[in-house]
Amino acid sequence: MSYRAPVAEMAFALRHVAGLDQAIASGALGDLTIEDAEAILHEAGRVADSVIAPLNKVGDRHGTPLHDGVVTTPPGWKAAYRTWIEGGWNGLSAEPDYGGQGLPLLINAACNEMWNAASIAFGLCPLLTAGAIEALTAHGSEELKARYLGKLVSGEWTATMNLTEPQAGSDLSLLRSRAEPAGDGSYRITGSKIYITYGEHDLTDNIVHLVLARLKDAPAGTRGISLFLVPKFLPDGSRNDLRCSGIEHKLGIHGSPTCSMAFGDHGGATGWLIGEENRGLACMFTMMNSARLNVGLQGVGIAERAYQQALTYARDRRQGRTTGAETTSPIVEHADVQRMLLTMKAYTAAARGICYVTAEGLDAAHGPEGKAGNDRASLLTPVAKAFATDIANEVTSLGVQVHGGMGFVEETGAAQHMRDARILAIYEGTNGIQAIDLVTRKLPLNGGATVQAQIASMRRAVEGVLKDAAPAFGHTAARLRAAIESLDRATSFQLKALGSNRPDAALAGATPYLRLFGLAQGGACLARAALASSAALKAGETDPAHAARIALARFYAENLLVAAGGLEESVIDGGAFTEGAALALAS
Amino acid sequence: MSYRAPVAEMAFALRHVAGLDQAIASGALGDLTIEDAEAILHEAGRVADSVIAPLNKVGDRHGTPLHDGVVTTPPGWKAAYRTWIEGGWNGLSAEPDYGGQGLPLLINAACNEMWNAASIAFGLCPLLTAGAIEALTAHGSEELKARYLGKLVSGEWTATMNLTEPQAGSDLSLLRSRAEPAGDGSYRITGSKIYITYGEHDLTDNIVHLVLARLKDAPAGTRGISLFLVPKFLPDGSRNDLRCSGIEHKLGIHGSPTCSMAFGDHGGATGWLIGEENRGLACMFTMMNSARLNVGLQGVGIAERAYQQALTYARDRRQGRTTGAETTSPIVEHADVQRMLLTMKAYTAAARGICYVTAEGLDAAHGPEGKAGNDRASLLTPVAKAFATDIANEVTSLGVQVHGGMGFVEETGAAQHMRDARILAIYEGTNGIQAIDLVTRKLPLNGGATVQAQIASMRRAVEGVLKDAAPAFGHTAARLRAAIESLDRATSFQLKALGSNRPDAALAGATPYLRLFGLAQGGACLARAALASSAALKAGETDPAHAARIALARFYAENLLVAAGGLEESVIDGGAFTEGAALALAS
Repeated sequence: MSYRAPVAEMAFALRHVAGLDQAIASGALGDLTIEDAEAILHEAGRVADSVIAPLNKVGDRHGTPLHDGVVTTPPGWKAAYRTWIEGGWNGLSAEPDYGGQGLPLLINAACNEMWNAASIAFGLCPLLTAGAIEALTAHGSEELKARYLGKLVSGEWTATMNLTEPQAGSDLSLLRSRAEPAGDGSYRITGSKIYITYGEHDLTDNIVHLVLARLKDAPAGTRGISLFLVPKFLPDGSRNDLRCSGIEHKLGIHGSPTCSMAFGDHGGATGWLIGEENRGLACMFTMMNSARLNVGLQGVGIAERAYQQALTYARDRRQGRTTGAETTSPIVEHADVQRMLLTMKAYTAAARGICYVTAEGLDAAHGPEGKAGNDRASLLTPVAKAFATDIANEVTSLGVQVHGGMGFVEETGAAQHMRDARILAIYEGTNGIQAIDLVTRKLPLNGGATVQAQIASMRRAVEGVLKDAAPAFGHTAARLRAAIESLDRATSFQLKALGSNRPDAALAGATPYLRLFGLAQGGACLARAALASSAALKAGETDPAHAARIALARFYAENLLVAAGGLEESVIDGGAFTEGAALALAS
Repeated sequence: MSYRAPVAEMAFALRHVAGLDQAIASGALGDLTIEDAEAILHEAGRVADSVIAPLNKVGDRHGTPLHDGVVTTPPGWKAAYRTWIEGGWNGLSAEPDYGGQGLPLLINAACNEMWNAASIAFGLCPLLTAGAIEALTAHGSEELKARYLGKLVSGEWTATMNLTEPQAGSDLSLLRSRAEPAGDGSYRITGSKIYITYGEHDLTDNIVHLVLARLKDAPAGTRGISLFLVPKFLPDGSRNDLRCSGIEHKLGIHGSPTCSMAFGDHGGATGWLIGEENRGLACMFTMMNSARLNVGLQGVGIAERAYQQALTYARDRRQGRTTGAETTSPIVEHADVQRMLLTMKAYTAAARGICYVTAEGLDAAHGPEGKAGNDRASLLTPVAKAFATDIANEVTSLGVQVHGGMGFVEETGAAQHMRDARILAIYEGTNGIQAIDLVTRKLPLNGGATVQAQIASMRRAVEGVLKDAAPAFGHTAARLRAAIESLDRATSFQLKALGSNRPDAALAGATPYLRLFGLAQGGACLARAALASSAALKAGETDPAHAARIALARFYAENLLVAAGGLEESVIDGGAFTEGAALALAS
């Protein structure tokens, strides 16, 4: 079965979890109305469902063969990409000066979820172009912007991020690609890059590579890295000195070509500096932060799709009888299948909430809130990326499990979601790197005030549930409060460890800390949605989705948030292994 | 990298976790000595490492093509199978009357772990033959035994389990295959079966199918199912009326042919009844219980293999610097990588302990302990199957994560382990079915006395750690005690729900209950191993594996056992969703 964008649920999350109504009322989003926003989501949903989603299995089966340096995308992809850019989707939140529509990132976040639910392999190409647009907008010269931004915003050309080399993955200080000034303002780039997503393809006439390389005599390590724009075709129409030298045979996202790139076989590819010399990493981080949130949204999208497929199957497949049933029951009526489906749905909704709240912070950074919004988004970005992609692995695996033996058979499609999802916790900074980023760089923001403000916002959700007092919430308030208090204590522990110069103690618990953060933040998001629904029910609305949201928040609190106490113990009292680890791994 | 059977660690677990020393001292295992047992493990390890392990990737790449009804196994498999059966491994714990070696199941369990670590796809064929041997031994007529057991025990022929039909998976009451008496003592079988592992192959001259089918006028449901032995070639050498009609394209275990089987295209395949008419399910359960423990051991095996590969990679790959390091560090020195590797190792060792303790119960059933041993094994079998295969999914996924981007590239092999492992939680009864079996059939054994005795045995491990008092245990005793008390309370809740005729309340928490059971039992197993090592250290032994076992038990207690409290809450207070599930899944 295919994907149907859950537009009503997404709009509800935007409005009542991520504060779209408030943002619009405050005037921070210009003349955008709720009706506009919903109309955009509906149209995006139509394109995702009917144009992109049908490509997903085709991409998995055909892959992207490489012959003589030319990569062919799967059947139908070129036409779909053309339809998609002609709809203006590529530049949805890009600057109007360069042809963008200047819409809030929050709206774009919801759309990105849809493209990637429809096909991660397809959605990945514009995801990278968007990162390049941001880097170029922030750091590019006026000449480079004039030459490239318009075509990138329209999607007529795509872009890549060329970071990784065989010896330099998470650790970019080790990279060796070189750049030399050519004397005419351009540079000659030589080196080999690996894992370059859409490094070569046939969707567009040109590809704009953003490449990290070292200048001669640059300082060692990450302070000697510069960022260059290196197009496949030069402004004069000639082919640049770069090529795709190989393509990976991967577990998933077969529709997305993962290329090895060779720059400078014939003396050096021509490139232009973006930003200052030796400041390339800072420029690259501009695009990586945006990309990280979008990877989180890929996780939400594929989790949603896996959930939809599993639910459809569970309603159709009959096995066994539930208590008192007279005939064979659809498996959706069995408690263990319900637990799996609700786990899938609840984690997906929690991750969606976290990603949207992160996007809201980025929008707020451009409004009256300014830096505080940006800091909030910075804090939440590693949580959005890692939590949403960790649960994507769990949810897609549960999707296989709901299908039973059929889940292991490739024709069913459930296994593809699991294979496709598996890259998300790895690329754009492994989830281990995200946890380190959260603990060592984000918790200390403003002396801890940013994280404390975030915890305070979660506590308001608990107060809301207590005040609402609908019996359908069950133990929701108690469990959410316990999780937030666990997060608060774990946060104090981490800040104290960092403050007393014991980074190893903080690092040892970074991964369970991030999970705890995501669990609690996700619980607060679900509670907010449920509170809005409870208010609507009290106001006489009868949409069954309202009661469903309360039941979902309760399930999450009573069955998933309960992990918080154990995670806190792991963060605070579980770090002794760093001293004995070598020993325990020795035998 | 390939697999190296961890023979010393396995022998230590057999002796000090599963009580091999005690069993030998008690005389329950005949004249077997520790030296014999270790010699067998060493030789099995040699065969697993050098003969089978190299086939694993070959099997994944070549698969098992079907042409004109003939399935071809991957290059090298036939020769390896020949070598393996010539070593006598197939009949290790089969009865000497039929050519078996009559060794304890405990020894065979360790060997099964090795074959499957070397290649699940390879190990699966003898796993099914072993189940058929058990069913035939327990329920077959003397004539059938005389005709088939010898060749099955030697491995000259293999066997299959033909249960599933498209409409009948977990629910065998729905099956439709038919059997009619032929008047000469044999039956004519017609019907279609799916998911038949090694239903057709070229490893042996004959294949013995055990097939579930209905006699005419048999009662509806599971009380009208009979079990038949239906060989590919009949005793007179003629081909039976059955064929492989298709083969599945699967996520993993590509080296193992998963066949659709058609019986009776030309009037009916000839078969012979095993056991009594309409009692086929009881006979099949004989083989399924053995098979379930062995599937648990497949989980242990592949988890061990994934761990070994990840550890090797992490020692080799250098990225980033640890605190105070002057040059780039191997990633095994980073705290988050250590956490992943220790999680992999600790879960694997815990699952190994649970499986071995289950096998010990089966051996004890044949000795002076009798029924109590069998009841203990019955209780633990669903835990062994489900916990070991759930952690196999988690451990193999962590194995991919440790490799970073390399883990997503198929050539590395880490992804294959994850793909191969994914079937384990599904076949031989999904893990949801295992949880239901544990709660509704196993907890009530002897009025709850069996589970209480098991919990009491776990408590002795806590007392041991408290008495040992080595500082290296850290919080081990406290965390293990808390987990066991959580298990005790959750057990009381489940028994009370069953006793007061509220099966839905028990079923709602069955899956977290099983996880809690496995976590606590696994913690007790690791503590037992660590206690034996602590005693050895106090006695002056210097093997570094001793300190490593204590560190591992501590890591498990402080970082994984801490999940117990949340699981208890989910079991006891999380079941409201069964009432609201339809609602929450509706929107």
